[in-house]
Amino acid sequence: MQRTKIAIVGASGYTGMELLRLLLLHPHAEITAVTSRQEAGKALSDVFPRYLGAAGADLRFIEPDTQAIVASGATVAFLALPHGVAAQIAHELLSAGLRVIDLSADFRLRDADVYQHYYGQSHPYPNLLEKAVYGLPEIRADKIASASLVAAPGCYPTSILLPLIPLLSAKLLDPASIVAHSMSGVSGAGRKADIPFLFCECNESVRAYGIPKHRHLSEIEQELSLAAGQEVIISFLPHLVPVHNGIATTITAKLAESCDAAAVGDALTAAYATAPFVRLLGNGVCADTKYVTRTNFIDIGWHHDPRTQRIILTSAEDNLGKGAGGQAVQCFNLMCGLPVRAGLENF
Amino acid sequence: MQRTKIAIVGASGYTGMELLRLLLLHPHAEITAVTSRQEAGKALSDVFPRYLGAAGADLRFIEPDTQAIVASGATVAFLALPHGVAAQIAHELLSAGLRVIDLSADFRLRDADVYQHYYGQSHPYPNLLEKAVYGLPEIRADKIASASLVAAPGCYPTSILLPLIPLLSAKLLDPASIVAHSMSGVSGAGRKADIPFLFCECNESVRAYGIPKHRHLSEIEQELSLAAGQEVIISFLPHLVPVHNGIATTITAKLAESCDAAAVGDALTAAYATAPFVRLLGNGVCADTKYVTRTNFIDIGWHHDPRTQRIILTSAEDNLGKGAGGQAVQCFNLMCGLPVRAGLENF
Amino acid sequence: MQRTKIAIVGASGYTGMELLRLLLLHPHAEITAVTSRQEAGKALSDVFPRYLGAAGADLRFIEPDTQAIVASGATVAFLALPHGVAAQIAHELLSAGLRVIDLSADFRLRDADVYQHYYGQSHPYPNLLEKAVYGLPEIRADKIASASLVAAPGCYPTSILLPLIPLLSAKLLDPASIVAHSMSGVSGAGRKADIPFLFCECNESVRAYGIPKHRHLSEIEQELSLAAGQEVIISFLPHLVPVHNGIATTITAKLAESCDAAAVGDALTAAYATAPFVRLLGNGVCADTKYVTRTNFIDIGWHHDPRTQRIILTSAEDNLGKGAGGQAVQCFNLMCGLPVRAGLENF
Amino acid sequence: MQRTKIAIVGASGYTGMELLRLLLLHPHAEITAVTSRQEAGKALSDVFPRYLGAAGADLRFIEPDTQAIVASGATVAFLALPHGVAAQIAHELLSAGLRVIDLSADFRLRDADVYQHYYGQSHPYPNLLEKAVYGLPEIRADKIASASLVAAPGCYPTSILLPLIPLLSAKLLDPASIVAHSMSGVSGAGRKADIPFLFCECNESVRAYGIPKHRHLSEIEQELSLAAGQEVIISFLPHLVPVHNGIATTITAKLAESCDAAAVGDALTAAYATAPFVRLLGNGVCADTKYVTRTNFIDIGWHHDPRTQRIILTSAEDNLGKGAGGQAVQCFNLMCGLPVRAGLENF
Repeated sequence: MQRTKIAIVGASGYTGMELLRLLLLHPHAEITAVTSRQEAGKALSDVFPRYLGAAGADLRFIEPDTQAIVASGATVAFLALPHGVAAQIAHELLSAGLRVIDLSADFRLRDADVYQHYYGQSHPYPNLLEKAVYGLPEIRADKIASASLVAAPGCYPTSILLPLIPLLSAKLLDPASIVAHSMSGVSGAGRKADIPFLFCECNESVRAYGIPKHRHLSEIEQELSLAAGQEVIISFLPHLVPVHNGIATTITAKLAESCDAAAVGDALTAAYATAPFVRLLGNGVCADTKYVTRTNFIDIGWHHDPRTQRIILTSAEDNLGKGAGGQAVQCFNLMCGLPVRAGLENF
Repeated sequence: MQRTKIAIVGASGYTGMELLRLLLLHPHAEITAVTSRQEAGKALSDVFPRYLGAAGADLRFIEPDTQAIVASGATVAFLALPHGVAAQIAHELLSAGLRVIDLSADFRLRDADVYQHYYGQSHPYPNLLEKAVYGLPEIRADKIASASLVAAPGCYPTSILLPLIPLLSAKLLDPASIVAHSMSGVSGAGRKADIPFLFCECNESVRAYGIPKHRHLSEIEQELSLAAGQEVIISFLPHLVPVHNGIATTITAKLAESCDAAAVGDALTAAYATAPFVRLLGNGVCADTKYVTRTNFIDIGWHHDPRTQRIILTSAEDNLGKGAGGQAVQCFNLMCGLPVRAGLENF
Repeated sequence: MQRTKIAIVGASGYTGMELLRLLLLHPHAEITAVTSRQEAGKALSDVFPRYLGAAGADLRFIEPDTQAIVASGATVAFLALPHGVAAQIAHELLSAGLRVIDLSADFRLRDADVYQHYYGQSHPYPNLLEKAVYGLPEIRADKIASASLVAAPGCYPTSILLPLIPLLSAKLLDPASIVAHSMSGVSGAGRKADIPFLFCECNESVRAYGIPKHRHLSEIEQELSLAAGQEVIISFLPHLVPVHNGIATTITAKLAESCDAAAVGDALTAAYATAPFVRLLGNGVCADTKYVTRTNFIDIGWHHDPRTQRIILTSAEDNLGKGAGGQAVQCFNLMCGLPVRAGLENF
Repeated sequence: MQRTKIAIVGASGYTGMELLRLLLLHPHAEITAVTSRQEAGKALSDVFPRYLGAAGADLRFIEPDTQAIVASGATVAFLALPHGVAAQIAHELLSAGLRVIDLSADFRLRDADVYQHYYGQSHPYPNLLEKAVYGLPEIRADKIASASLVAAPGCYPTSILLPLIPLLSAKLLDPASIVAHSMSGVSGAGRKADIPFLFCECNESVRAYGIPKHRHLSEIEQELSLAAGQEVIISFLPHLVPVHNGIATTITAKLAESCDAAAVGDALTAAYATAPFVRLLGNGVCADTKYVTRTNFIDIGWHHDPRTQRIILTSAEDNLGKGAGGQAVQCFNLMCGLPVRAGLENF
């Protein structure tokens, strides 16, 4: 089978690094362009010594120039750029006929007003929003398969949406009662020189942040509302913990009246029994990030607390894996009609 | 001023180690006996090389024998023993006329049935339960001052009770809506050889555990119910994160109807304005464990989320400090009429 | 191509876990038996939840019984057992016609007296020692290819031997001047319940140990002496540092008289230019463990210090990868005539 | 006793933070000025929330202006500034009659040419170099006591000099054979926004750097040469390991001919038997950073290897404590005739 030629735009951060890890070894992909304004001219393996010696790691970074990307022969582009920056180049690449998998927040929201409210700037290409597909493969595989523009979900949202969507669809939970508490590794903050993310500021530190209105709330509530068929407003409480990668999320919600707790496991099993990257740990089991780091898996466990009638869901994923790069590759496989696990069988 | 002679019973774990750290340097205490079944005969500094060279660190561990403890001249005993074991020696030491500060769970509950339910064994000295004072100095300093038996609160409970008690007392929150998420350092698991607490099992791991009914719920709900004047049942979600010490707790609760969010800050300020070890960070600030480790401080911040009408409280403490040893020393200072900060001015 | 059937004997520790990671995904291997006395009866994925959902992870652990291993059809056995235990089962499996790759120390030494001196017990099968091949693929690929018994080198030795052997072979260094300083991640201590390896005893701790005569000295000096053509005695200084996996080694040695420093780079390049898993970083570059963890690479950099006429070599490897499981798989590929990178193209 | 008024110039980094920790609680010091160009106007506790609630923590940072420092009444100034910057303000403060304890490298070297060679700039006040005392209290307490300008030693040098000086003074070691390996926590890199010191770049990473000619070599060799009475040139190999603070150093050196290994312990004991902050662990014991962090102790252990006739010395200190702030306070106590342990009895 011929390899699909792909470009990674903005490949010098942690998400870009994970995309490289997955795509350098992907049996059906060939990286033809990687861009980075600050690293242009350097070989992949100079910027990321981990990849030294890998086939393809002598490719050189280029400037993020649409013409050059097109000229490389790439037909699919992964964008690992800051929000606001991604939209412009997505527009250009789409116009040039490429399919785009954007890992920024620029195309995750259906409503440009919500984008403006949460991201503090007007959306530069609001007409692209309806074209974009929110790329949760377990929820809308078909639309992803045929999309030209996929918005890969945020890391926190993935860890919250996958446990909750089947339960809200089945009306098993009281939507107004949802509280989602997440703990993220430091790679989630990106690879930028900021004092709060120095080793000595994160090591031996546990802290909440972004309360009460973290930007990821916008896409979380959009997708939960779609699943529930009604507006859902939740509390989302992100925390930073001293691990490199991994997100652990613990969600509480009231069981809907007259619902049986056993229905929770049934709904999750029905939704994910054949999903290759969702591992249902079962009732009474808690997820642990150390079992999912560097994989595309999300682990989900659940409990029922009869004292409070709350359902407790725990999930664990790699924020760079299922929460970013792995999920993007999963979308890529769908878009190209490739085997679903291609390039993702690592652990 | 003459130093009070004290004994530390069960001093070979992390809580014992922290008590030693504080009491070796306490200006008004003199350690006359330290016990440990497995370390008997060894000097303090052999077991804890950190204390090598400190005045008093050549004291030798003895067996946990009441006669020997009494013979040392100690008038106050700190017990850092497993629950179930503490009650017996507490009884003996009290009978011998010592005052006891117990850091186990044996005297925290007023109701022996609740003890049996949560700890799986009948309480050996139920009549001592009414004598015991639950040792939260910010809440009942007077009773602690005159007590002969103080039950130092658990680490998680301290981080949950101090933010919530003033708000429940003032009827500002809906008690049925409380969800408390806590993240603890690994020292909370104790200094015992168990595979799940090896470095390689905890490092780069974030995980929930003890869901939905961790033992600490029993004392949390007891004290919250007292404050609220009604039965309070909450969800408590403990997590293990890879730090040595520190607990970060994030609590959500619905603002009671017709209450104003500003009343939250007012109630906390009224409760703790002069409390030397509670630091109110204010509205809109999140607590961070790295600022409180190795201190007796608890930091508390709060937010109001108008979208959900929830109040979000974050607290940070050292699980071995304000959550155990520091709090016990704070009780000791009260019991002996010492300056409140004596031996606790470290950071 | 038909997959080679393999057994992993003693698969419940960290080395066994790494062998499983590599062999579950190896394109030319099929795991037919995994043994563990304490986990017998459980599925792989019960013991190692990371592997849940992988093809083959529902295989169940069995007792380490030779008959059962043979009955599984395995033709190659990997032994990840403690020294002393491995020799017995190796003997039995060899007698039954299997080829054996032993990751313990039992077959690394040519001299049974040295074994007794360093390991404190007489060797149970001294006659097997001459049959065994010390499994450094970069040094003796041919012998490994035809061996029935391969002794995979220790983690520390690999990090010291690969930089030094070409230089000693070329007489570029004064053998009496060698000092090797190594820093290992905690997984090197194994997956056993020991207080010194608890998270709280290793985190925020850096310490030397095993000085001056760590057991790995025996094989290091054996192989260095072979390379140098004379007896080599070195100082080896192992340290424990708070990372999960990875060994960084820094070696100093005097440049031999009348040798040119440039010859160092030449000798390393000549030795490893085509070695797929040795990455020569060049003169003036220091190795960093974070680029090699979870790979089979060893990175090597070097410096010349004209002030002292010492050559300084730095190497980095994964103690569980190139230092154990990866190297064993590399030997397996050689033994079975497989592509050298098969199953090892992960990073 | 009246408190000595002191200033901390350049107090916004990790060394400044440690000086604050020690001096806020020092029984005989009163901080009257703290400076930081970037934090001017903020309270101590705004910049370092750890100190919130401490007496004195409401003091506000000022610009590093000599007039203002003098006006504060300070008679002793601690300088925690970058090299090059410290010399100028030291000159001004000395001219204004203050005594100065400089923690930068600006006054550690006796020879301005060596300064220029290692620090790449000509020394702005070479005439101050002979006035300055290299502040190792265990080696030259008397000179420190009467000095107006003390150069507090570097963190690495302290960990190397204290074990070696008594042995070189006693001619027990071959000076040409010394190799010093050091492993430092990340706080040694300072509190500045640099990608290589982000959490994700340091966590799970072990790496050498600064080979073969780290700047600290200049002061190490100066002081070793003084002790040996001859020029000493060594190999110094610094490494970065993922801990917040702490330096572990392992030194090898050949025992001088005809010397007895037992003389090593004798010489160390003679040198440090009454030194309050040097803890001799004895023969056969390795130092561990976890026992000295946040103290002013340095722990020293030693071994003799009869196979190589090398002496192996291990030391552990806190790079911010005995390696910086603690040592500076120890000098301050000497300079002011205070009890030697004043303000340093923390662990």
